Amino acid sequence: MKEIIAIIRPKKVGATKEALDALGFPSFMAMAVLGRGHQRGIAAEIGCEIPEHLLAQGRSGGMKYIPKRMLTLVVPDANADEVVRTIIAVNQTAQIGDGKIFISPVDDALRVRTDETGESAIL
Amino acid sequence: MKEIIAIIRPKKVGATKEALDALGFPSFMAMAVLGRGHQRGIAAEIGCEIPEHLLAQGRSGGMKYIPKRMLTLVVPDANADEVVRTIIAVNQTAQIGDGKIFISPVDDALRVRTDETGESAIL
Amino acid sequence: MKEIIAIIRPKKVGATKEALDALGFPSFMAMAVLGRGHQRGIAAEIGCEIPEHLLAQGRSGGMKYIPKRMLTLVVPDANADEVVRTIIAVNQTAQIGDGKIFISPVDDALRVRTDETGESAIL
Repeated sequence: MKEIIAIIRPKKVGATKEALDALGFPSFMAMAVLGRGHQRGIAAEIGCEIPEHLLAQGRSGGMKYIPKRMLTLVVPDANADEVVRTIIAVNQTAQIGDGKIFISPVDDALRVRTDETGESAIL
Repeated sequence: MKEIIAIIRPKKVGATKEALDALGFPSFMAMAVLGRGHQRGIAAEIGCEIPEHLLAQGRSGGMKYIPKRMLTLVVPDANADEVVRTIIAVNQTAQIGDGKIFISPVDDALRVRTDETGESAIL
Repeated sequence: MKEIIAIIRPKKVGATKEALDALGFPSFMAMAVLGRGHQRGIAAEIGCEIPEHLLAQGRSGGMKYIPKRMLTLVVPDANADEVVRTIIAVNQTAQIGDGKIFISPVDDALRVRTDETGESAIL
């Protein structure tokens, strides 16, 4: 199994979830994070609103951090590539700030209600 | 070492922490997340309250996401199974929404204060 | 590639980011978390302020949890050690509560805007 973490624009969350649901992956975790890439958050200078409670979390030293959404899902190895391509298809705008995707190994998954393990716990 | 991520009901956090503490694992991170499984968040329709600031993070497209707590702990390989069984024992209600557990590899851990590494950094 | 997760004091976030930026790693995710180590959050008893919305997330059973910041970055294998040493150099105060660092394997990274993969997606 693979864990796929996508750091994307907040306004792309809805379309990303719909595309992954259509692909057969309705299960997620979503979190608000602050992040920046190698452009050091230039988007903050062009009108992105940063909520007060997020500002309180991560701003420092005059550097700009951008509110992002982190979507995490765990999928079978065989589906990792199509999931990644789907996330890219929805989120690629060619503008700085499109985000990043990380793929990491997962040893096992369990569904608490049924004690199912392995791929049957996530499908 | 293994990272164990448990996505559980908010009301089960206290009992889960107490059970893990009793097992000798008092160290955690806890985060509020929004998530849903393959039932697409049906619990939201039966009276679960969703705080405003969470709604703002993850709702979209008419789909239901449920506030969950994510507990993360890192344990020695030899203890991963008992930790997982303990989390299941506390959280299994046979109702949809009991949650999921993911187990992932961790290469190393360090305690910042003492420079300890490996299992002595987490025990 | 390695994922480096640092759980540090909130007041050390700014200096940590500056030190990592100077080392050539300006990219991060930052999140507010509640955590505790084996001292079971003793710092909470010596005047640490816990915001209401964090208290609501993780307090239970009379146990003390401490607001921390979780910084996550993904770096090439060859840079993992210097990144860890830099985080320790900034955060080591010899006081309980300095935090922990976890290092985990990452299979791949992608920059959504350009389809770059591997180390060129993170450098």
